Amino acid sequence: MKAIVMTAFGGPEVLEQRELPKPGPGPTEVLVKVCATSVNPVDYQTRRGDYKEGMELPFILGLDVSGVVEAVGESVRGFAPGDEVYYMPKMFARPGSYAEYQVSDESIVARKPANLSHSEAAALPLVGGTVWECLVTRGRLQVGESVLIHAGAGGIGSFAIQLAKAMGAYVFTTCSARNADLPKSLGADRVIDYQSEDYVEVINRETGGAGVDLVLDTIGGQTIERSAYVLKQFGRVSTIVDIPDPQSLLEMWNRNATVSFIFTPVYRSKLDAIRNLVERGLIRPVVDSVMPLSQAAEAHRRLERGGVRGKIVLDAGA
Amino acid sequence: MKAIVMTAFGGPEVLEQRELPKPGPGPTEVLVKVCATSVNPVDYQTRRGDYKEGMELPFILGLDVSGVVEAVGESVRGFAPGDEVYYMPKMFARPGSYAEYQVSDESIVARKPANLSHSEAAALPLVGGTVWECLVTRGRLQVGESVLIHAGAGGIGSFAIQLAKAMGAYVFTTCSARNADLPKSLGADRVIDYQSEDYVEVINRETGGAGVDLVLDTIGGQTIERSAYVLKQFGRVSTIVDIPDPQSLLEMWNRNATVSFIFTPVYRSKLDAIRNLVERGLIRPVVDSVMPLSQAAEAHRRLERGGVRGKIVLDAGA
Repeated sequence: MKAIVMTAFGGPEVLEQRELPKPGPGPTEVLVKVCATSVNPVDYQTRRGDYKEGMELPFILGLDVSGVVEAVGESVRGFAPGDEVYYMPKMFARPGSYAEYQVSDESIVARKPANLSHSEAAALPLVGGTVWECLVTRGRLQVGESVLIHAGAGGIGSFAIQLAKAMGAYVFTTCSARNADLPKSLGADRVIDYQSEDYVEVINRETGGAGVDLVLDTIGGQTIERSAYVLKQFGRVSTIVDIPDPQSLLEMWNRNATVSFIFTPVYRSKLDAIRNLVERGLIRPVVDSVMPLSQAAEAHRRLERGGVRGKIVLDAGA
Repeated sequence: MKAIVMTAFGGPEVLEQRELPKPGPGPTEVLVKVCATSVNPVDYQTRRGDYKEGMELPFILGLDVSGVVEAVGESVRGFAPGDEVYYMPKMFARPGSYAEYQVSDESIVARKPANLSHSEAAALPLVGGTVWECLVTRGRLQVGESVLIHAGAGGIGSFAIQLAKAMGAYVFTTCSARNADLPKSLGADRVIDYQSEDYVEVINRETGGAGVDLVLDTIGGQTIERSAYVLKQFGRVSTIVDIPDPQSLLEMWNRNATVSFIFTPVYRSKLDAIRNLVERGLIRPVVDSVMPLSQAAEAHRRLERGGVRGKIVLDAGA
């Protein structure tokens, strides 16, 4: 099979297309023909060596699959060849999805939303499962509450706006003026142009100093620290950007804040819940562009450069 | 009435006994004859100026009351003169409990545990309500889980050990060898002598690397940062020491940790729940010593020096 192999830690040039043996499923596993995958920031972070401890090279990156079951192990009962599925392969542990085929335990595989193409469905697993953890499982966002979603035109942000609206929340989001149309079209109530407005000042002014119930930090830097200044008493922060820089947390105590640090695998139950919302038309994937799998290195360059609207999908059949 | 008045921000010497007019209750308030109060670290932190913003001097410190209702406002329905009560006065907003009388809104006042003296009951409100927030409300400690309680011989720690045991948890605690008998007598399963053992090493060894479900940080410094290294996946930290030093949080993402920053007022519902546990014999106040209210400055000196076992109580009738 064709696969994009990471041959060393480094820049996008370490991604090489190679011909590898087609894998087979173990007893509890499914072999999936990958129709589409997508690129995520964790892919280029892994590529450049942020998580190199314990990893063996060469390695196949990729944490999103939409595809078709080709073969199943002898103990698999939930899937049969021909089933359309979408899922997030297990992180770091085994070959990922930048390939024609991927093998995963059936327990993490879910049925694909029926109303989506593979290119659309491949935009969802990692992003959708992560946002679910941030807003629902750990963030406990409630109907009528308010949330600040950073980078509302990005992969995580564009999904999070839709999920927060489906949950009945009021959504503040930040993005560049150039991309403001996207979060607006997804239902954001207030789009803050981070280049001309300070979100701390805007939120405090527009909420009469009350602040928001939840902040979704997708950008790192000083966001955790600054988040405290837009939080209500007993507000929460869900942060997905693991940064080594020390953070000043003093204001967190004044606000009785709770911070959830999220780096969580995506399980079937979340993907089932997301499929339900997608099929009911409450959430749609936001696809910036579809590129052939062979151009994975170029997709990394574009994602790292920034300004991507939603997700870059890689078509494994192209 | 006699009161201990903070005349300036500074050392214990700024606490002076003065004669002040006896206050009266507003429509929804109760006037309480203070039989006993206690000293808490937040008292000397306030005295030295940590929270000076918006505070007016002179000021009466004190955040614990056990006493007897002397008069009630015209709208008060829940209490009558002669009722024995215990509560935590509202922080910073009005005169505290280092005085013969204290006035509070009836909504924060609770009935005193029947089986305790006033000196015992005065040890409970701030500590008990804070620990309740840390372990129950925000820490969500579950039966069968494990918890690390720092400073298990202190005011917070000695209450927390008993509450965690009542909840069915396994308790690790740290204290000096000199005080190890106290947390043991309160039911701690494993007392770590922090002067001769490293708690991160002990917990990882004794849990086979699994770690604990919850950490209660009562000591500040690098405890938040180090707590990550003893946490299970999806573990929690409840921290009550507001420190300005920046904290390195990288390991929190690896553990999918949640950190709750707690600086929470104590409400009647918590005090009612605590009274129930005290009357059933599941929790007892740990009183290091009882000093006359007139020696409040000396009580501050002792608490700041460290090594206090449980709480220092001030007897307002002495």
